[in-house]
Amino acid sequence: AKPRGGPKAMPGGPRPAGEDSGGVSGLLRRLARLEDSRQRAAELFRWLLAPVAPAEFLRRHWEREPLLLRRGDPGYYAGLFSTAEFDAALRGGEVHFGTHLDVTSYAEGVRETHNPSGRALPAVVWDFYQNGCSLRLLCPQAFSPTVWHFLSILQEQFGSMAGANTYLTPPGTQGFAPHYDDIEAFVLQLEGKKRWRVYRPRTDAEVLPQFSSANLTQAELGEPVLETVLETGDLLYFPRGFIHQGDCLPDAHSLHITVSSYQRNSWGDFLEKLLPAALQMALEEEVEYRRGLPMDYLQYMGVANSDTVDARRTAFVEKVQSLIKKLVDYVPIDAAVDQRAKSFLHDCLPPVLTESEKAQSVYGFPARWQDGGPCNVDILITKDTEVRLLRHGIVRLCNEEAGVMLYYTTENSRVYHKEEPKFLELDPEYTDSVEFLLSSYPNHVSVANLPCETLEEKISLATLLFEKGILTTKKPLAKI
Amino acid sequence: AKPRGGPKAMPGGPRPAGEDSGGVSGLLRRLARLEDSRQRAAELFRWLLAPVAPAEFLRRHWEREPLLLRRGDPGYYAGLFSTAEFDAALRGGEVHFGTHLDVTSYAEGVRETHNPSGRALPAVVWDFYQNGCSLRLLCPQAFSPTVWHFLSILQEQFGSMAGANTYLTPPGTQGFAPHYDDIEAFVLQLEGKKRWRVYRPRTDAEVLPQFSSANLTQAELGEPVLETVLETGDLLYFPRGFIHQGDCLPDAHSLHITVSSYQRNSWGDFLEKLLPAALQMALEEEVEYRRGLPMDYLQYMGVANSDTVDARRTAFVEKVQSLIKKLVDYVPIDAAVDQRAKSFLHDCLPPVLTESEKAQSVYGFPARWQDGGPCNVDILITKDTEVRLLRHGIVRLCNEEAGVMLYYTTENSRVYHKEEPKFLELDPEYTDSVEFLLSSYPNHVSVANLPCETLEEKISLATLLFEKGILTTKKPLAKI
Amino acid sequence: AKPRGGPKAMPGGPRPAGEDSGGVSGLLRRLARLEDSRQRAAELFRWLLAPVAPAEFLRRHWEREPLLLRRGDPGYYAGLFSTAEFDAALRGGEVHFGTHLDVTSYAEGVRETHNPSGRALPAVVWDFYQNGCSLRLLCPQAFSPTVWHFLSILQEQFGSMAGANTYLTPPGTQGFAPHYDDIEAFVLQLEGKKRWRVYRPRTDAEVLPQFSSANLTQAELGEPVLETVLETGDLLYFPRGFIHQGDCLPDAHSLHITVSSYQRNSWGDFLEKLLPAALQMALEEEVEYRRGLPMDYLQYMGVANSDTVDARRTAFVEKVQSLIKKLVDYVPIDAAVDQRAKSFLHDCLPPVLTESEKAQSVYGFPARWQDGGPCNVDILITKDTEVRLLRHGIVRLCNEEAGVMLYYTTENSRVYHKEEPKFLELDPEYTDSVEFLLSSYPNHVSVANLPCETLEEKISLATLLFEKGILTTKKPLAKI
Amino acid sequence: AKPRGGPKAMPGGPRPAGEDSGGVSGLLRRLARLEDSRQRAAELFRWLLAPVAPAEFLRRHWEREPLLLRRGDPGYYAGLFSTAEFDAALRGGEVHFGTHLDVTSYAEGVRETHNPSGRALPAVVWDFYQNGCSLRLLCPQAFSPTVWHFLSILQEQFGSMAGANTYLTPPGTQGFAPHYDDIEAFVLQLEGKKRWRVYRPRTDAEVLPQFSSANLTQAELGEPVLETVLETGDLLYFPRGFIHQGDCLPDAHSLHITVSSYQRNSWGDFLEKLLPAALQMALEEEVEYRRGLPMDYLQYMGVANSDTVDARRTAFVEKVQSLIKKLVDYVPIDAAVDQRAKSFLHDCLPPVLTESEKAQSVYGFPARWQDGGPCNVDILITKDTEVRLLRHGIVRLCNEEAGVMLYYTTENSRVYHKEEPKFLELDPEYTDSVEFLLSSYPNHVSVANLPCETLEEKISLATLLFEKGILTTKKPLAKI
Repeated sequence: AKPRGGPKAMPGGPRPAGEDSGGVSGLLRRLARLEDSRQRAAELFRWLLAPVAPAEFLRRHWEREPLLLRRGDPGYYAGLFSTAEFDAALRGGEVHFGTHLDVTSYAEGVRETHNPSGRALPAVVWDFYQNGCSLRLLCPQAFSPTVWHFLSILQEQFGSMAGANTYLTPPGTQGFAPHYDDIEAFVLQLEGKKRWRVYRPRTDAEVLPQFSSANLTQAELGEPVLETVLETGDLLYFPRGFIHQGDCLPDAHSLHITVSSYQRNSWGDFLEKLLPAALQMALEEEVEYRRGLPMDYLQYMGVANSDTVDARRTAFVEKVQSLIKKLVDYVPIDAAVDQRAKSFLHDCLPPVLTESEKAQSVYGFPARWQDGGPCNVDILITKDTEVRLLRHGIVRLCNEEAGVMLYYTTENSRVYHKEEPKFLELDPEYTDSVEFLLSSYPNHVSVANLPCETLEEKISLATLLFEKGILTTKKPLAKI
Repeated sequence: AKPRGGPKAMPGGPRPAGEDSGGVSGLLRRLARLEDSRQRAAELFRWLLAPVAPAEFLRRHWEREPLLLRRGDPGYYAGLFSTAEFDAALRGGEVHFGTHLDVTSYAEGVRETHNPSGRALPAVVWDFYQNGCSLRLLCPQAFSPTVWHFLSILQEQFGSMAGANTYLTPPGTQGFAPHYDDIEAFVLQLEGKKRWRVYRPRTDAEVLPQFSSANLTQAELGEPVLETVLETGDLLYFPRGFIHQGDCLPDAHSLHITVSSYQRNSWGDFLEKLLPAALQMALEEEVEYRRGLPMDYLQYMGVANSDTVDARRTAFVEKVQSLIKKLVDYVPIDAAVDQRAKSFLHDCLPPVLTESEKAQSVYGFPARWQDGGPCNVDILITKDTEVRLLRHGIVRLCNEEAGVMLYYTTENSRVYHKEEPKFLELDPEYTDSVEFLLSSYPNHVSVANLPCETLEEKISLATLLFEKGILTTKKPLAKI
Repeated sequence: AKPRGGPKAMPGGPRPAGEDSGGVSGLLRRLARLEDSRQRAAELFRWLLAPVAPAEFLRRHWEREPLLLRRGDPGYYAGLFSTAEFDAALRGGEVHFGTHLDVTSYAEGVRETHNPSGRALPAVVWDFYQNGCSLRLLCPQAFSPTVWHFLSILQEQFGSMAGANTYLTPPGTQGFAPHYDDIEAFVLQLEGKKRWRVYRPRTDAEVLPQFSSANLTQAELGEPVLETVLETGDLLYFPRGFIHQGDCLPDAHSLHITVSSYQRNSWGDFLEKLLPAALQMALEEEVEYRRGLPMDYLQYMGVANSDTVDARRTAFVEKVQSLIKKLVDYVPIDAAVDQRAKSFLHDCLPPVLTESEKAQSVYGFPARWQDGGPCNVDILITKDTEVRLLRHGIVRLCNEEAGVMLYYTTENSRVYHKEEPKFLELDPEYTDSVEFLLSSYPNHVSVANLPCETLEEKISLATLLFEKGILTTKKPLAKI
Repeated sequence: AKPRGGPKAMPGGPRPAGEDSGGVSGLLRRLARLEDSRQRAAELFRWLLAPVAPAEFLRRHWEREPLLLRRGDPGYYAGLFSTAEFDAALRGGEVHFGTHLDVTSYAEGVRETHNPSGRALPAVVWDFYQNGCSLRLLCPQAFSPTVWHFLSILQEQFGSMAGANTYLTPPGTQGFAPHYDDIEAFVLQLEGKKRWRVYRPRTDAEVLPQFSSANLTQAELGEPVLETVLETGDLLYFPRGFIHQGDCLPDAHSLHITVSSYQRNSWGDFLEKLLPAALQMALEEEVEYRRGLPMDYLQYMGVANSDTVDARRTAFVEKVQSLIKKLVDYVPIDAAVDQRAKSFLHDCLPPVLTESEKAQSVYGFPARWQDGGPCNVDILITKDTEVRLLRHGIVRLCNEEAGVMLYYTTENSRVYHKEEPKFLELDPEYTDSVEFLLSSYPNHVSVANLPCETLEEKISLATLLFEKGILTTKKPLAKI
């Protein structure tokens, strides 16, 4: 029975030849030819949703409705991730149960986790799999350079952390109980196929929820809004709050990667940071907020008095409402956005450099030890050196009490928050130059054109940013 | 030179004979004859400000302007506190330096504290005094039953903690540097006299400030708005933020008590509790708050973009403003007031009972050990027993996650926060009865009239509240 | 049936007339006539055990066997504590359930605690009692000046904290399950009578145990070594580890006070502090302790090798044994004793002064506020003033890293550890004077005779100690 | 001038051809042919000290005197580590300043650290070097598989953590101030040459010290006991407490690795764990330790009484001494050794497997993903499978309160303490089998011969240990 009201699968239709040849590897090659990191991100997002246009997706599906894309192209995601790579990661000896890998099962309504302690070696992991357990790899970007590369581009599109898990499920089994998550989910079917059932949020309160659900029972579910078998190359998107469960048909295993974003990224999350700052500013600037409460308010306010008609109640409530409304005159919105950006930059994956980017950056700088001493050491940035940011989204200026801080992502780890937030404290007079670099991007600018006072300062700033991998030069810095 | 714009000293004028005879002792006796604790509080407040009417005070002075009352009546505060009582407290051996008593000096612009460690015994304390040090007793209500009684009544008027310090200053000295405080201050001159200089807040930001100032230098002060010599029986009031300094003339020592209130009791303090609760409710009830931020907001928002004209910026700001304004639909004002009330009840001094109140309460209940066994033990509350709350302001009902809690002050300590907040968890069905007791106050009601379902419940509730000292009976409970 | 091997009740026999007339009040009066606090302590101890001589008690009972003294003198403890005083304490409103008072029951093998929260008022407490509950007052010395006085003397005899609880039990009930404690217990029957059953430690490990037992069942007990009915004026002593239970006969309530001491006061407790200090000294002074372990010791040592015969094992063990034995050359025994003394002084009750002692001390110093100013302020200690310590056991000198500290008890609280340890940092050159005061005690010495370098120092030290209540003068310091 | 009393450089003399051909790579190949890990460790130690025999070294130098070995063989350490490998590590982007790399200088008596924050990239690092800074790589074993391999073998010889730092110093500079360390140090000159000056401990207390010194000034040093120029291939050993400083001649840079061990590995460190355990056992088993202290000991003991002659003092001291000496009857030496072993196993590097060892272990087990499913998954251990421990020193049984724990090193990280201690809780009945495996090592035993009760248990235990990499099989486990 076809579920009512569900989204239609959109057949991909004919695509321009060569457009997606080469799967993800080809995609990443094509993106590397784009100058602007924001354009790369947009392009990857377009590819992810193709043939649905991003604008269409945002209008009709994002945070609204599931989207099912049947591409009929098993090679669409080729090169992103495979069970063979998963096997290689196990073989590498750095995958640990619990930290990186969960062994799970769901049968007869019972959801279990079977993680032993310690290192997840192939002999043990595959034995679990053969016994019907699902394998969830929690941080594939730490083991797969391609997943890392893919997500590091995508995160700039979302402006919010892009994470991923991969799920390997044996034929004829299900690994997880039905539940809903607190993130926007893109399911990319990498190998085999999997049956999915997706259900609408059950109540208004579960629409775009702040927190994931517990495991649900089948009895708590209604009719699915979508029931389908996802095949290799297909995409399934559903918003947070949509309950879902996936199980394998008897004849095929399934490997998919779920790309996620927009966890704790709502207007309310923003207000949580903004309101205390706004109130603090209002308290400092406006005496109305500092005036004392009425001496007798405890007598006519309070739940026990909530049904009382009393002019003093009305006045009190109106005063509170007016003070709340007047807060909008004090909200430091831009400063609060910078604080969110700072937090996002800490969440970010570090950028993946192409070979030519590497050659133009400190990572490809030819300084090395040779013949008993270092050679090619001097970073010869001059007034004529043409520079630009490595990516648009890798830096953020924040005015903080302690000074002007430039937060950046190039020294982040592939492992979530393994490194502390990285930042440089900048002399406030360098602010303009950083903003100039941001607004000039993706064009190169001559160091001479940086709006610093002296040439020495221009070169000093450029060198500092170059050494941190934030700036690249138009031509590889040659040794003189 | 008379300071410009300062408040005029209001001569007390003739008073009806006997009205204030007996000083504070007489006052407390008169108050004891009033049935309603709110009336007692209002009356004490009126007496404190007499001959200025409270309404006049609130309109013209409270949080606005200093008020100087020259009463020409050295006996006005008689019985409240004296140096002799202070001496007796030292003699009692329970006054400790630092905890209860500060020894200070201010000379040639240098403010010092001279507290030794340990117990403050008369021989040592008076030696400091003889050497020109001022003595600040931090918690006179813990040592003086009258101060305790006085403040315990006054706190119900303020709806905010009423605290006090006493200051004993040797002739010809000053004990403290000029500064402003974060509380409304009532200076009651108890003995001798003192010269006061009061200055307006220096900036808008220092009007009704949230926090006290550091010690100021004379150079930081302008012209005083008020300069006067306060004499025994006089009152000086000034709002928080008004800088002040007091010093003794060469010919007389000074003892005054400063009664304070309204610390952290502003609209802003209220909003600090209210806003997070409002946002949480909005998040739960209104999907608009849970929707994701725009994907690209980090690019056009932020301080670096604050001067940019961009329709997306306008939309973002308007959205934030609209969400803030819409918060007023969700503000749980009454619940937040109850939380403040709960906090105030924790700050409160426990009530002081008159002899007849004691006889009507559990504190005067005749249960005792006699002739080898307890006698008069049974608390015989029946349907006909007439009861009322000991005071109106000693209880508060709060609906909390864990249940309905009745907070109360009768088991508080005279020492600030020495006891944890005291509360009873009540079956929700008792809520109506508590509200009935509150609304009936100061009239007595028969236990039979409590809106509980069964007589057993009525008696059980009344007994519980009686045992905690919260309820009193019209007639002392006689043993049968 | 008479238990086998139990102690014999010792009939008091005839006592010299008047010797103990006046009960405890008379006793304390007699003690006040003794000059030396150590003598007072010894005398009180003798009185406690009379007619058994202390030496006899220490030889045959202390930490060995129970002792039952039937005095046939119901007035022996008169004045120490009574149910009437307990009732008065309740009436005072400062007794709180849990903190000061436990309401307990033991019936049909079930031991329960019935503490409500908050203040323990007579009406509620006596109701529990009437319903068969026992009442344990945890800190009678905080409510009864006599108990405080009594224990403050006794603690100097024990050199270990002397504590107390009182127990009031209704007729025909038992308040506690059988158990053993970790303290030496002296049960003083104050009112009524109580049946006691005492049992030997069940195993070697339970002889003089470090920790109290849980509640035991009757089935876990054997035959009592002693079964008796304790009557007013009688004493029952039993060492830690002896199981005991007491219940009231149907015809009489019981009030007794249990005086306790020697908690954590064993040789082992001393070694716990001493050994780390000894090892640290040995490590610093003796290279043998700093030499490396044998490279291969992990291979032949360890539990798995414990049955192996191996010369290397023997050598290893012998080396360890020799190093342990050699520790005795480094044990800083005296310093460790001083640390225990410091800890004991923190546990101590503050001294109770007689009227004449008060007159000779800072507590009776006539400094006071009078006629608008302090009078009699100067503490005129001169070279001729004769001084001595208030008590021998109220001070202790400790050489610590931070300096020479004089710990003292005069500013302790009657409530256990309510005050931090009190101490004065002394210039090391004052050490001799403090030791001189200690060794001269109970004789007075002239200030001139203190072994300080200058007279100024002598007076300064004497004044400091006088101000802390540590020194008294032979004659009250008169004002000149 | 030749320093007096210093050690003689020992010329290596002729060595059997081929014995050390191939430097460290050849050494590790030769070691791999030895069956027993203890033998490998001993052999590596012999090679490290050659041509001095280990026994000779232990007798004359270890913890006693420096040893200088001039080998005249620049290729002796070939393959262990080089500046080229250091450069490659920097290039890898995972070296961080502070965490892994220190940039230091010492000039004109001033020792400085110049670490920037973040990633240590070649361009920046070599710039520091060119400016005369020394580079200390703190954990070369994390970046160099050979250093890891080398240390992982050596640690089994020491029975104590073997650590390492490498130091790269520019010509004509010195990177560190003179100081002494708290570890035994083996300086292996890898490239270039360095002048060393070594000084005897200055006082008895600095012989084999527990803690490293601060930086010392030249003025604090006496005459060196040894002054030499270490050349590539040479070894310099000195015990903890020997002050040392090394500087480069103007004509050559220097790279050396300092291998260290025996930090906190003295008899005293052992006693620190042992004594509290011994006292606890004594307290439990021997009533003498639980008896109370004498009532009056505070009066005659303590520093103030230390010069007093008093029989009670003598008795007290003798009692303490006797109790300390009697502790030797209770010392749980073997259990304490097991606790040290457990701690050592946590410090250990994980083992490095040769190719053939890998084939015989779970790390080479052929389970893998192939053709859409796992293959070769079953670990077919049968009664006839011959097994042995991978190394002797990788496991330790500890009897703990929670049960019998088998601690092991195979899941440790190359980064110090990055992983928590790894252990398996074993059924106590498996203890014998683990001990059997330990005592049989390096011989293989049939699973059938394990002293478990049933064959199922034997196979289960062998499989468990095999899966953790602890057991290897004589023949690679073939798939059936």
